[in-house]
Amino acid sequence: MNRKFRVLSDTPFDEASLELLRRGIAPHELILPQVGVASVLATASYSVEGIDIVLGQPDPARVLVSESLRWVQLSSAGFTRYDTPEFRAETQARGVIFTNSSSVYDEPCAAQVLAFMLAETRQLPRSLKVRCDNRSPEWKELRHGSLLLRNQSVLILGYGAIARCLVRMLAPLGPRITALRRKPEGNEEVPIITFAELPEALASADHVVNILPDNADSRGFFTGERFGQMKAGAAFYNIGRGTTVDQDALAESLRSGHLGAAWLDVTDPEPLPSGHPLVGLENCYITPHIAGGHQNESESLIRHFLENFRRFLDGEPLRDRIF
Amino acid sequence: MNRKFRVLSDTPFDEASLELLRRGIAPHELILPQVGVASVLATASYSVEGIDIVLGQPDPARVLVSESLRWVQLSSAGFTRYDTPEFRAETQARGVIFTNSSSVYDEPCAAQVLAFMLAETRQLPRSLKVRCDNRSPEWKELRHGSLLLRNQSVLILGYGAIARCLVRMLAPLGPRITALRRKPEGNEEVPIITFAELPEALASADHVVNILPDNADSRGFFTGERFGQMKAGAAFYNIGRGTTVDQDALAESLRSGHLGAAWLDVTDPEPLPSGHPLVGLENCYITPHIAGGHQNESESLIRHFLENFRRFLDGEPLRDRIF
Repeated sequence: MNRKFRVLSDTPFDEASLELLRRGIAPHELILPQVGVASVLATASYSVEGIDIVLGQPDPARVLVSESLRWVQLSSAGFTRYDTPEFRAETQARGVIFTNSSSVYDEPCAAQVLAFMLAETRQLPRSLKVRCDNRSPEWKELRHGSLLLRNQSVLILGYGAIARCLVRMLAPLGPRITALRRKPEGNEEVPIITFAELPEALASADHVVNILPDNADSRGFFTGERFGQMKAGAAFYNIGRGTTVDQDALAESLRSGHLGAAWLDVTDPEPLPSGHPLVGLENCYITPHIAGGHQNESESLIRHFLENFRRFLDGEPLRDRIF
Repeated sequence: MNRKFRVLSDTPFDEASLELLRRGIAPHELILPQVGVASVLATASYSVEGIDIVLGQPDPARVLVSESLRWVQLSSAGFTRYDTPEFRAETQARGVIFTNSSSVYDEPCAAQVLAFMLAETRQLPRSLKVRCDNRSPEWKELRHGSLLLRNQSVLILGYGAIARCLVRMLAPLGPRITALRRKPEGNEEVPIITFAELPEALASADHVVNILPDNADSRGFFTGERFGQMKAGAAFYNIGRGTTVDQDALAESLRSGHLGAAWLDVTDPEPLPSGHPLVGLENCYITPHIAGGHQNESESLIRHFLENFRRFLDGEPLRDRIF
């Protein structure tokens, strides 16, 4: 193939990472937009006219008018801004392929959930604070309250790359796992429940893991009614998007003691303002949207892109294709 | 077999657990000593004369003079009080079998280490305290500081049931694992290093997991010199016994920043007194010897004993035999 592709990246990489990307795609050309992108959720204002490939977060409106664009690889796992039937239909009609970077973030996100689940079952927040005599009543309570995941039940909402990774990580710990998936494909590693079965599944799960993406179907999915259906004392985890949860209802469920605990890496907004009902609740544990983070995150993003770039050049199917 | 065995249990079980044990061994007889045992480390003062089998923590001196004793199943994984060459030789000469309950405690102890390792790599103590804007300098630091265990190196000291369980739990997370074992058997699941290779292994490990039992060889094993050999910024975990560590040297290594963090479920003494050099150190995380705890711990202990009791009656090899 003699054609030189113009590859634009708007991701705020450092110089070493940019060099890795530049060399990786050579002799094809790396273009940097004039304006940096402050957040993946901000609107990038650069044009993608004359660009063949974007690695980053291009403005959906600009994507739709580009005559040149052939492939966009999002630098995130989430793709809310692009996830409308109209956008999908229009880009498909124009022959623009969309991939995301979910395989860069599945493992750290799954590890974060596992860290949460083990901190919860081993009662780390409480036991790290206590100094007590072996065999004291407090010790006995702590010791007997430290749970094994074996034979406990885990319900996962949203069965994509993170869930599959989490299922593999949980396997040696022995919980029973079921999952809810919008469009089951029949190749899932765990039993998939239907929406009709959700109330029963919520009622029997010791751990409910929310990995739902943000879209029209999932917004506000976890209502007070759904929290009410959960088993008393169960733990709720959110690693997806804060918008999928009625946070006032969650706070009420935690305050009343119906839910045992919530572990959230995402909230709406981020961070939560002081005085928010979830802030300061003793059984609500919040990390500031860092689940996807890991050493060499930039390098992982670039290597994932370069693998797909090779596939693109060789006419092979791309990884993490979303539409 | 028509003989009725007399089985003594000194473990402070509740009534329901005692009933499970009593029914499980029937028609053999359950004997309870007059004096309860406050701690597995206290000296039980009841006689074992006329007793065939003990489940618990009998006084070693009483064991040595019993004419009737044939088998002791310790209710703990640790067996320091019995672990001398003289005691082993004498009980072997008398034909008394010793088993322990390590398979009751291996999984919760391994889960506790995994909880520690994930809390450390995902920076839970710090990230649970922070509320920060996405993309703020603090957020970037947290996000990039959150590690994956994949491709990190883990060195395990003491390769018994807990270590094997931990190796299985770590497998999907992808670290490189090596271990030190006093007497390698050649069937270990990971590469076993020799004592001569220890300095090099300490220097290259990101995570050093101490599961050494307490005995004459292991007491004070982790000296200042050994902490000095560890990689800068590495994390140290202790789930074995506090006596295997020079705690002043550990505190110094943590204070100087040479070690990144220590996660300890055991200390010497327990709990540590106020003002101890390890207490209050920001990068020293201590839980009060609860790693073995889990729901239905009593039931697990009894079921493990009953399985061995069946094997004993049927002349099969006992599980968790220690000598």
